[in-house]
Amino acid sequence: MELTAGHVWVMVAAALVLFMTPGLAFFYGGMTRAKAALNMMMMSFISIGIVGVVWVLWGSSMSSGEGFLEIVGNPFATFGLEGVNATPDGLIKVGYAATFAIITVALISGAIADRAKFGAWSIFVPVWVTLVYAPLAYMVWGGGLFGTEGVIGKALGHAIDFAGGTVVHINAGVAALVLVLIIGNRRGFGKDPNHRPHNIPFVMLGAAILWFGWFGFNGGAAATAEQAGLIWINTLAAPAAAMIGWLITERIRDGHPTSLGAASGVVAGLVAITPACADVSPVGALGLGVVAGVASALAVGLKFRWGFDDSLDVVGVHLVSGIIGTVAIGFIAVPTEGTTPGGLFYGGGFTQLWAQLAAAGVAIVFSAVMTAIIALAIHKTMGFRVSTEQENVGVDLSLHAETAYEFGVNGHGGSFQPLHEAMTGKSDSAATKASAEGKESVQA
Amino acid sequence: MELTAGHVWVMVAAALVLFMTPGLAFFYGGMTRAKAALNMMMMSFISIGIVGVVWVLWGSSMSSGEGFLEIVGNPFATFGLEGVNATPDGLIKVGYAATFAIITVALISGAIADRAKFGAWSIFVPVWVTLVYAPLAYMVWGGGLFGTEGVIGKALGHAIDFAGGTVVHINAGVAALVLVLIIGNRRGFGKDPNHRPHNIPFVMLGAAILWFGWFGFNGGAAATAEQAGLIWINTLAAPAAAMIGWLITERIRDGHPTSLGAASGVVAGLVAITPACADVSPVGALGLGVVAGVASALAVGLKFRWGFDDSLDVVGVHLVSGIIGTVAIGFIAVPTEGTTPGGLFYGGGFTQLWAQLAAAGVAIVFSAVMTAIIALAIHKTMGFRVSTEQENVGVDLSLHAETAYEFGVNGHGGSFQPLHEAMTGKSDSAATKASAEGKESVQA
Amino acid sequence: MELTAGHVWVMVAAALVLFMTPGLAFFYGGMTRAKAALNMMMMSFISIGIVGVVWVLWGSSMSSGEGFLEIVGNPFATFGLEGVNATPDGLIKVGYAATFAIITVALISGAIADRAKFGAWSIFVPVWVTLVYAPLAYMVWGGGLFGTEGVIGKALGHAIDFAGGTVVHINAGVAALVLVLIIGNRRGFGKDPNHRPHNIPFVMLGAAILWFGWFGFNGGAAATAEQAGLIWINTLAAPAAAMIGWLITERIRDGHPTSLGAASGVVAGLVAITPACADVSPVGALGLGVVAGVASALAVGLKFRWGFDDSLDVVGVHLVSGIIGTVAIGFIAVPTEGTTPGGLFYGGGFTQLWAQLAAAGVAIVFSAVMTAIIALAIHKTMGFRVSTEQENVGVDLSLHAETAYEFGVNGHGGSFQPLHEAMTGKSDSAATKASAEGKESVQA
Repeated sequence: MELTAGHVWVMVAAALVLFMTPGLAFFYGGMTRAKAALNMMMMSFISIGIVGVVWVLWGSSMSSGEGFLEIVGNPFATFGLEGVNATPDGLIKVGYAATFAIITVALISGAIADRAKFGAWSIFVPVWVTLVYAPLAYMVWGGGLFGTEGVIGKALGHAIDFAGGTVVHINAGVAALVLVLIIGNRRGFGKDPNHRPHNIPFVMLGAAILWFGWFGFNGGAAATAEQAGLIWINTLAAPAAAMIGWLITERIRDGHPTSLGAASGVVAGLVAITPACADVSPVGALGLGVVAGVASALAVGLKFRWGFDDSLDVVGVHLVSGIIGTVAIGFIAVPTEGTTPGGLFYGGGFTQLWAQLAAAGVAIVFSAVMTAIIALAIHKTMGFRVSTEQENVGVDLSLHAETAYEFGVNGHGGSFQPLHEAMTGKSDSAATKASAEGKESVQA
Repeated sequence: MELTAGHVWVMVAAALVLFMTPGLAFFYGGMTRAKAALNMMMMSFISIGIVGVVWVLWGSSMSSGEGFLEIVGNPFATFGLEGVNATPDGLIKVGYAATFAIITVALISGAIADRAKFGAWSIFVPVWVTLVYAPLAYMVWGGGLFGTEGVIGKALGHAIDFAGGTVVHINAGVAALVLVLIIGNRRGFGKDPNHRPHNIPFVMLGAAILWFGWFGFNGGAAATAEQAGLIWINTLAAPAAAMIGWLITERIRDGHPTSLGAASGVVAGLVAITPACADVSPVGALGLGVVAGVASALAVGLKFRWGFDDSLDVVGVHLVSGIIGTVAIGFIAVPTEGTTPGGLFYGGGFTQLWAQLAAAGVAIVFSAVMTAIIALAIHKTMGFRVSTEQENVGVDLSLHAETAYEFGVNGHGGSFQPLHEAMTGKSDSAATKASAEGKESVQA
Repeated sequence: MELTAGHVWVMVAAALVLFMTPGLAFFYGGMTRAKAALNMMMMSFISIGIVGVVWVLWGSSMSSGEGFLEIVGNPFATFGLEGVNATPDGLIKVGYAATFAIITVALISGAIADRAKFGAWSIFVPVWVTLVYAPLAYMVWGGGLFGTEGVIGKALGHAIDFAGGTVVHINAGVAALVLVLIIGNRRGFGKDPNHRPHNIPFVMLGAAILWFGWFGFNGGAAATAEQAGLIWINTLAAPAAAMIGWLITERIRDGHPTSLGAASGVVAGLVAITPACADVSPVGALGLGVVAGVASALAVGLKFRWGFDDSLDVVGVHLVSGIIGTVAIGFIAVPTEGTTPGGLFYGGGFTQLWAQLAAAGVAIVFSAVMTAIIALAIHKTMGFRVSTEQENVGVDLSLHAETAYEFGVNGHGGSFQPLHEAMTGKSDSAATKASAEGKESVQA
């Protein structure tokens, strides 16, 4: 088949979405302490590696086609993507779908910064994608329960989730909360002043890459030029407004608008517009963005009050703004023949709103129960958490035998603190002393 | 309407151009001192946020359609983008145009590093986009004064500005110069050796993202495959040649070709080719690039001689190379039926040259006068500049209560200097002492 | 001609591939010591600048069209790209090809980190692209020796190299090895513990940009939607599997899976799938990825045993995985009418395997001989290596008069060590002392 504009758009979109996961690695990695940055980034990278393999082997097959009780597809139907290229949709859409599975599981990792075993995470990723992500994707997008022909879709109306409010953000946000409750808080949570982002420019880089990629994330499935244009504008408008909403909230509450807030606001707005991007007006997107920005800015403070260490605010951003975006469709969806009677504010009555609430509710319950089973199984057998000593030394050194940076004095290089000293905390070598005195010692 | 290749190209181009503004944040942010990096980046980020909202509400409407005296469009014609999707151009081109408005105002911020109030900047951005950018875009691209049917276009000939020599670069460069003259120089300008880039890899990252995105910036409006190909090649050739021109200038003048110079040369070449990208040959683009690289490399030294603190060289790069590119069209444009008789060197006589000079001149005067009015109004009321103490402490801490990095010893993490100490300059805690001794203190 | 989906795809692909070279700058730059990071990045940047100019002037002309002995095209046929836009292929494909030439020469630079004269490198780049890259591209892709009509192509069968196993990776890997042998090892190679990556997040950023861009690198020449989809999936699958292969190798051998390994594994997998991307199944790509990941993880250790300082593992990754990918086609190519009888494992017998071995062998010999001549000529005349003192001080300061970072204490900024002190190693200024005490000195 000749390459069409639609093919090109989906291929570009898929590459953009794949690029989002390293973007997420920087968004999260910059927020951790310096001694845990690599491990944080590795949780995203290994998600690409593992889910990339899983999706080719059985994940894609499980998210579409003939299903089991409208819940999940047959893993062996197109195992290894055998024969897929002979179908009209072909492999291009498989690639696009793979990138969604990858980033969804990676999103979860932000909640368990600094304290998860890398090995346990590497078990969690394929199991969770297989048992939680793939079924939910099947139920919402693959012709399952929530589809127009599905049991729930017929009973409660077809919930709109254009690009992943339930499947991606509510799902990841709930899973993050469950993981925190099972694994527990970081040592010093809420008390240690060192729990601060070590590299905010990286956080901003991550947010920028995420926003860039999100045009593919939201837009890749656009059916017409009009829909594509609407999605593009909404993917600009909502995060722009959410950034402002978050910064104004900070300005009023704390006195200062922060860079961390700007980056977080962008992501909150992107999350909120995700399910709604094709069904609200640009002004609706602005309003939705402001609400999401303010709400998530307020929500991220709750973890300290309620005492759960959602370290990098996966719950406050993805769960809260994911719910807001999903439910908002029930209020501000523009009526469209064959898709929705419109939201409550657009004369559509409560029909769409009930459907949205139902979808959000089922996604929450499904993700919570399934994630809890998986995480508990791992935690009770191999353990999900590093030892206290490993946590104190830092997971980068203790799990990966690396440190993110070796800057020397002022970043000029020069002699470094030897690795064994960094690990033991002793500091007695000549090199370290020279370093502390600002000298550039000559290596021979 | 079915998605066409043209739609896909503009959507991709728009995403690329949006990505340029965070790229600019890194280009500029890396050039500041460490204690002002976040504020610098925030000036770009908030431009995305504010202009994203403004453009949806009234900016797009003001830059096209029926105009007022051929100067500016009616802000209420398509307020909130109501009804735009029913027009043939639809929303896709609105998104593309929005990204141009965003980056133009962000470009200005480089001139006022380390000393502008974030609140004042947040007022300046929407006002300037509304009163300066939108009208100039209307005059040049929206069917206004400079168009083929416009008063100036008919009188002096139609000036060519394919992708923004006047509207974007001359405009931003002039506005930058005006702001510096109103706000004043940084403390220690020209004397303090600490006024050095704190993270040159970030500058290079920014330049790389800018170059990447510039293929969308220049190419997005291509009408044919031939024109698109020519633009693509010219967007490679000119900055490549400009990088070499800048580095050779440095090598001869200072003895060393620098990384900062390579990154700056790339941007100078991109600026110069912007208006000319569709109307010069690849060899012409090489020549234009060399001239721009050399000229901007020489121009950035003038601020020290003339004593205006254009901190990150917005004037030397964007104004100078913007003028060079705009005027060069009058010399090296290739004759094209219906567009231009060609430049002076291509047998077209002086016709195109006068048109280019006129457009550059009007853009300079318009931008200077309007920007001065806006900036003075802000400066005389709320004030545009932080206090001396805030400037000394650093605008990151004083305006945003953040520091860009928390690296600890050698970048290994460990105990940090508490934030209040960094703000007061006192250093008496045990944590800081342990840190200075290169120890990894264990937090319990 | 109207813009088609094919045009758009190639333009996007070309922009993606151009973005890869700055990505490579970060991949390599993060792996060096802090005092040589800028120089490392500059070797990539100047490759863009110089090859960008060379390709417009004569490089493109030399890589296609009527050739000399089926070895290289006529440099004057389309010098300056004169008249190219009137041909059916036009300038879009020239841009795409230019980006391949750029990254290939940049790849070499990783082998000679910390010790090459920037001036010598700036001579090497255009000469090598002209005499080694352009001819090999002509022989393999431009209708030369290896083509279906070429002497070798007819004698030994047509070797498959879809996106650059021989032309790009084997070629660059061999050239890297030759350069190391001529220039010699870094001082302290294999002994100095400071020879460690200074910024691993940059390495990961680089790997991410490379992966993102590689979808254009592999996919840009796709002829049909089916082929494009297969290439996309394979470009996801192989590096995903290679990352896992590399990490498991590290886990078994060293006890820890590292971030550096994850990033390197991704690149190894991308290299291996490059020639094979259009001719193996997704499961084949997974298998190829695992083999490449494990093999390159093992190969990078050889430099210490054999004593050649391939500083950033160009040989271990690009040469080794480039050969693996090129030869693997002989085993696992899927039979396709008109292209290949299939690999040995797919019933195609040894035909394809011999062709692949021959192509790899000729590429190795050609690149080794030609590179040696060029490098020796430079080394014996102007010298390719900096002085011992320059190497000790660091090539950033000694060649570019810059340092990558100026972080001050903990990255908070503040007073810096003056540049002359950093260069001389003396430390006696008040500023440095204040800095060492963690104070924020106020500049007046």
